[in-house]
Parts: sequence; structure tokens; C-alpha cells
Amino acid sequence: MLAPSASYSFTIRLAIASRPGMLGRVASAIGEAGGDIGAVDLVETTRERTLRDITVKARDSAHAQRIVSRLRHVAGVRVGNVSDRTFLMHLGGKIEIHNKVPIRSRDDLSMAYTPGVARVCLAIHDDRQRAFSLTIKQNTIAVVTDGSAVLGLGDLGPEAALPVMEGKAMLFKELAGVDAFPVCLGTKDVDKIVETVKLIAPGFGGINLEDIAAPRCFEVEDRLRKDLDVPVFHDDQHGTAVVVLAALLNALRIVKKEPRRLRVVVTGVGAAGTATIKILQSSGVRDIVGVDEHGCLHRGRTEGMDFMKRWVASATNPRRVTGRLGDALAGADVFIGLSVPGILTVRDIKRMAKHPIVFAMANPEPEIRPEEAERHVRVMATGRSDYPNQINNVLCFPGFFRGLLDSRARTVNDEMKLAAAHALAACVSRSELGAEYIIPSVFNKAVAPAVAAGVARAAHETGAARRRRPVDLSGSR
Amino acid sequence: MLAPSASYSFTIRLAIASRPGMLGRVASAIGEAGGDIGAVDLVETTRERTLRDITVKARDSAHAQRIVSRLRHVAGVRVGNVSDRTFLMHLGGKIEIHNKVPIRSRDDLSMAYTPGVARVCLAIHDDRQRAFSLTIKQNTIAVVTDGSAVLGLGDLGPEAALPVMEGKAMLFKELAGVDAFPVCLGTKDVDKIVETVKLIAPGFGGINLEDIAAPRCFEVEDRLRKDLDVPVFHDDQHGTAVVVLAALLNALRIVKKEPRRLRVVVTGVGAAGTATIKILQSSGVRDIVGVDEHGCLHRGRTEGMDFMKRWVASATNPRRVTGRLGDALAGADVFIGLSVPGILTVRDIKRMAKHPIVFAMANPEPEIRPEEAERHVRVMATGRSDYPNQINNVLCFPGFFRGLLDSRARTVNDEMKLAAAHALAACVSRSELGAEYIIPSVFNKAVAPAVAAGVARAAHETGAARRRRPVDLSGSR
Repeated sequence: MLAPSASYSFTIRLAIASRPGMLGRVASAIGEAGGDIGAVDLVETTRERTLRDITVKARDSAHAQRIVSRLRHVAGVRVGNVSDRTFLMHLGGKIEIHNKVPIRSRDDLSMAYTPGVARVCLAIHDDRQRAFSLTIKQNTIAVVTDGSAVLGLGDLGPEAALPVMEGKAMLFKELAGVDAFPVCLGTKDVDKIVETVKLIAPGFGGINLEDIAAPRCFEVEDRLRKDLDVPVFHDDQHGTAVVVLAALLNALRIVKKEPRRLRVVVTGVGAAGTATIKILQSSGVRDIVGVDEHGCLHRGRTEGMDFMKRWVASATNPRRVTGRLGDALAGADVFIGLSVPGILTVRDIKRMAKHPIVFAMANPEPEIRPEEAERHVRVMATGRSDYPNQINNVLCFPGFFRGLLDSRARTVNDEMKLAAAHALAACVSRSELGAEYIIPSVFNKAVAPAVAAGVARAAHETGAARRRRPVDLSGSR
Repeated sequence: MLAPSASYSFTIRLAIASRPGMLGRVASAIGEAGGDIGAVDLVETTRERTLRDITVKARDSAHAQRIVSRLRHVAGVRVGNVSDRTFLMHLGGKIEIHNKVPIRSRDDLSMAYTPGVARVCLAIHDDRQRAFSLTIKQNTIAVVTDGSAVLGLGDLGPEAALPVMEGKAMLFKELAGVDAFPVCLGTKDVDKIVETVKLIAPGFGGINLEDIAAPRCFEVEDRLRKDLDVPVFHDDQHGTAVVVLAALLNALRIVKKEPRRLRVVVTGVGAAGTATIKILQSSGVRDIVGVDEHGCLHRGRTEGMDFMKRWVASATNPRRVTGRLGDALAGADVFIGLSVPGILTVRDIKRMAKHPIVFAMANPEPEIRPEEAERHVRVMATGRSDYPNQINNVLCFPGFFRGLLDSRARTVNDEMKLAAAHALAACVSRSELGAEYIIPSVFNKAVAPAVAAGVARAAHETGAARRRRPVDLSGSR
């Protein structure tokens, strides 16, 4: 059973009769119904009753309703307004525009706007690259989606994708000082997505593609990378791949295995799976088998193929393994799950090589429950925050774009992704490293600067950087 | 000669010998060179010399250089770094993204991002209109340009237009709390502009078109208005038209003339001129003559026509006046200049009817210099801040979009524009009204709420509003 979560928390206003022991009864009722009590605020008190706002975490919406019903049955308690904290937080949106300097006088206006701004415009007209210093292009990226693969929910459309893009923008700002603006497109046509992003690109220093369904996302990214002179990064692919590789590098230090002699099975061969396969290959892993709902990908397979799966089939699986997931796992060192809940069994794990590493990252339910797997694996990771070793893109994308912007990179290359993964892995020190700590917390403030520094250094070393001066290698601006 | 302006101000660091009277000599040198001294900051002082940062306004770049040269010749003064304040203000851009709530804990993350955000996404997926309350769409507009008519500078391209769009965004925020984000398009093709704006529209509550050249701007606006369910407003057209009408309404109160019996000449028949002609017609003005570089627009003219000028020729000029500006002005009550500097002469004004009203709004130099015209006109206005009666779009666009967003208008209609003009005119009270005060200052804080309230009321009255509750008529959120 899931634990109560802030994402299903609500604040309930209660009028509680003013007599001893009443708050205890309220708290017990919530506790017995399985709710987790947070803040208890006093709103107002009279001789007869006390008004309190109580914040409660529930497991899901139905559970929240059961808690409220339970409170309705406590004698001496009247239930008032119940507000869903997640919805409250979203009212009016989560980000806003902020002026860096005020415009309060004629002088301010004449410098920030007409007539002063004209000289700045002409300077950029003389040399377009000056937009990188004299405009928001320096620090601003677009977070672009077509809303076709929103979280694990599928094709919700552009409006419904906006809360996710806003959340992403918040993380960019909070963790790495990057200004990110959501662009939700009303089309799922590859040509139109590519064309639109190209046409809006002049105002941005980079493009983060987000929640675009596979295999369309590969073509969109590929064409934009060729046509734009600012970096393009599909986070669902490369953000995931970078964090998986970082976690794997640290897991390998624990089991003392080498990438070159590793057998890896990847389930889910969509955006994240494909990019993970590629970054593993770049890191020297030679024996990878991709598995999807039709089984192992191999050169002879014809069922359920698209252009990217054909590429995976041809570029992986050197031993030509066929069959289903269990077949692929025989003798495998590493299981990387980016697929659907519950497809991995203890029996499958028992077929793996010694010291199995299992990354079960399906959301919200992993490919196998950690409680079930833990006695049979050496290192286990999931995408969840309530188990050890959470593999979360948030560890990558803010710092990655910080590094791209700091170095004024014109593109994203493999060297940067590898540098980011190594920098992220190095955030776990030798003394901290353990089977339950292979990847730092998303709130570790050292992560984004470390990733940024790695990316910026790689940008300079590979000639992708446009800034002459080497950036501050601490990664801060 | 122009007065020194903050838009040409610079800060100069001087090492001044530490002896009595030196600062006076420095100040005199700047004054003699025609510079206007602002802040004088002490940086550091030793027994030998004092370091000071002095801010000086100049008339233009060449003038700034002459002031600096002059200082180089003052004995006992060494000139250090000279920094252009306008460029300094633009470094890194003028706006940024700001998170409305912090993301500092696991709980914050689980509500603003996964997993909590999923419920918000699903709620919007069920009903797209919920994006207006649960996302930034509620308060966010796009400021869209193709960079083809930037200020008076012409076709500078999208990157060079960005500083203007950022400045516009600042004014939206500062004056009316509207979140505006610049979108600078790398195309001047009408089809592509229309298509791109349509595809990015899902994330925005409105579209402000900006600095798009005529006659392309008319088609872009027209097609977007038909296809989008959020309001589209080309500020160069309607912002100007609203402010001109407001100023004219007040000028007419002074000269005691009626719109229906007025003769008006409009020079410059581009975006602003055409929209001004239309709003004057909506206000009851029947005798309008448009004049461009080829002379009067009339039904028989064939030279230099486009589809919009053909419309103007057919819909105006009932007396079929031909010839040049001087011919059109014979007996005219009002001159409205939205064209180029210096085309209006005192002799032209003398041909006008009694109590001539002259709005000479060419930028930065008006159609006739106020000093020259003032003895011959009853009411004079320009686009400049250094003369009375500055007619500036800033008086319209922030409040206009505030009203559109407050009422959740699905479109912009003529009633809203007229309401905005009347609300703006009413910001000048009967007791304040005078030939030198027909329009409020751009820093008058009452303006944006008044315009917003007028627009929102018109939205409700015309059925364009989607919000059921009537908005707060003070115009504040």
C-alpha cells in the first residue's frame, strides 16, 4: 500500500467544540482513517468553539474523502471548507514574469524602452550574437511539448500538459537559475513541430523538448539539432539516460564490474530506453538487449518495429537473444526497467548473474516492488522518492542547461552527456557510496553546479562552446 | 536641439586630484560641453586622488563622446571606464521567470511536479477551459513580432527586436500585472506567422502583435482573430488608435466641436493610421482624408495602393479631395500625423479651420516642431515625453490586456476599443483639462485600472467575456 503523500494532501477547516481533549479526538480520527497530519493552524477561538485548519496527507482522492467522512462523525466537530492543496498551489499558474529593473520614472522608461532601446536593437542588428549578452536569450530556454506523452498519462493535449511544463520551469529556476518558458504546441505533426520551434528559436538560448511521444520525438530532435544553432535536448531521452548511467557507474563500483564485460537488459524501448541504450554504448557497454511488449529486439524481428526499434535491433543484442524478458535476463548483470509496472518477477532475477543490479523505474509502480526484490538483488533503484536510490531526471536537466548556457554551446553532444553522468556520479563520495546510496538526492545543492561544470567543460573541449573565456568551473554564474 | 536624455546617459569613472575646487572644474567641464549631471558617487579616496563615478546625460552618442573628450583635457583628471547605462541595463536581458511558490522540499515537489501535478493535468484534460484557472494561461500573453517594423527603425530581424519586446513585457507587468512573454519569429511570411502563433496559442490567454510591418500586419491579425479563441490585438494599430481617440475626445471638449461635423486629415496610412481612421469612424467622424507619400487617398487613385489602402480610399474622403497634404488640410479641423518628420508647415496649418488641433506623432521628430506650430494651433500633441500631451501606446496596452484577461475575453471588438478610449479620456478631469493637458501621464497609476475596467465592461456587455461573475470594476485583480 502506498504511503500518504503531499500530492494528495488537503486542508480542512474544522469548528471544534471548546472542551478538553477535543483536538486529540480529531487527531485520532484522522490517524485511524490512515491520514497523516501536517500543519495544525488556529484560525479563531471563542468560548464555544475553536476554528482550526488542519493539513492532512492522504494516499489518494478516495482516501481523502474517507478521512473527511470520518471527521464528520466525530461528535463536537463541524467540517467546513476542504481544499485540495495541490489544486490550490496551481491556481493562476506557478510561474510569472519578473522585471529585473523597475520602470518607475521617465528615465527608466527611456532606457528600457524607447528611445534608448533603439541603440541596443541596432547593436544586435549589426551582430546577431550580441543577443546572447543584451537580451534574455542569454539565460532563457523554451520547454516545448506537444502534450502527446505527458508523464505516464499519455496524449492529454497542450493545455493539460502546461502544469507539467510550468513545474519543469520552476525546477530549472530553483535548482540552476535557468529561465525556462513553457511552449505547448497545438499539433502532433512532426513537420509542424519542427517548423514552429525553428521559427520561435531566435529568442531562446536553448530548447528543451518534453513529453513528446516516441518515435516522433527522435525525428523532431534530430531535425532541430541539424537546423538550429542553439542546443536542443529531449529530456525524456537524455535526462533519463544521464541519470541512469550515473547510477549505474556507482552501482558498478559496488559490485566491482566493468562496463565492457557487462550484460545489460533494457525493458521499454521508447524515448528513455533508446537513449539509455545509446549512452551505455558510448560508455563502453557492448552487450545490451532491448525488450519491449513483443519480446527481445533482434535483427530478425519484424513484429512491432519502427525506424528507431530497427536501429536498436541492428546495433544491440550481439548474442542474438530471442524470446521474452526472462530469456534476455539469463546471465544478465543489469536490469534497466523503463517500461510498465510488475513485469519483473523474483524468478527472473534469480536467472541473472551474480550481484544483480536492478533499476525498476516504471512510474508510479516499478517493474518489481522493492520489498519483493530486495533479498535477491545487490543494488536496487527506482524512480520513486519513498525508496532508496531515486533515479530522477531532475538530477540532470537543470544543471545540464546551466552548463549549456554558461558555455553558450551551439549544440548538445555525447561528450556532454557522459560528462554530466560522471559529474553526477561523483557527487556521491567514496565514503558515502553504498548499495542504498548510489545517486544523490534531488535536493542536494551540489548536483546542478557539478553537472553544469561537467557539461561546460565538455562544451569547451569539443569546440561546441561559443564563449571564449573558460567558464567558472564551479558551475555558478 | 534635443535635450540631454537618460537614453544617452553614461557613467564615467574619474580619478580626480585631491585638491580644492577640482569637482567644480569637472562639473563645469561637463556643463560647458552640454552634459546633464546626475548621480555623483564617491568610489574611493586617498591623499592624492578621489575616484568618482559620475552619471551624465547626453543628447546622442556623438555628444557623449565630446563630453568625455572634454574631460580628458581637464588638468588633474584621469578618465577611467566609461559605461553606457542603457547597455548596462540590458545585460542579460530585462525580464526573468519567477516561481510563485518555492520548491524546496519533497512535499513542494510532489505537489508542483510529479506525482501531484498529474491530477491537475487530468482535470484540464477533462475540461480545457480549466487551463484558465489552473495554469499561467490565466494571466499570460505572448508579445509576438517578426521584427519587420521595429520602432521607427524598420526590418531589424527577430533577435534585434527582442529588447523592445522585453521592454514591452516590463511595461505590461509594471503597469497592469500582466505576464507577457516575447516571441520573436524568424519569418516574415504571413502564412508562417499565422500558423506559428496558432500552434503556440494553447499556453497563452492572449496575443499582442507588435512591430509587424503593414500591410502584412492586417492580414496576420485578421486571420488570427478568426482562428483563435483568445483575444488578438495588434498594438501598433489599436493601441495607437485608442490613445489618439482619447486625446481627440478631450481636445474636442476644449474647442467645443462634435465628431460628426469634424474634418480630419490623417498622414501615414500604415498600421497606426489605418486603425486610427477606423476608430474615428466608429466614433462618428464622417469626413476623414488619408494622405501618404503619394498624396490623398481617394477612390480614383491607382498609385502605390495595397489592399488596405484601397479599403481606406473607398471608405473615406467623401468630398473626393485630391492632391497633396496641403490640399487635404484646407478647412480641416484636425491633423493627425503618424508619418515622417517635418512634413507639416505653418502655411499648411494656416489653411486649416478655426481652432486647429494638431497631433504630430512621428518619432523621434514630429511632423512639425511644437515650437514652430504652437502660435498657430489651439491644441498640440506629439509622441514625445519632452512636450505637453504625449500620445503614447503605453497608456493603452497594459490596461487593455488587463481587462481582456480579467473578463477572460475570447476576442477583441470595437466596443472594447471605444470603451478604452473613453476611459482613458476620462482620466483627465474637467478641472484638469486644458490645451496642454488632454491626456494623462504614462506614470499615472489610475490609467491602467480605468482602461481595464472599460474593456472588461465592454467584454461583458458584448458577450465576449467568458467569466460569469462580473469583474471588479476597479480593474484590479
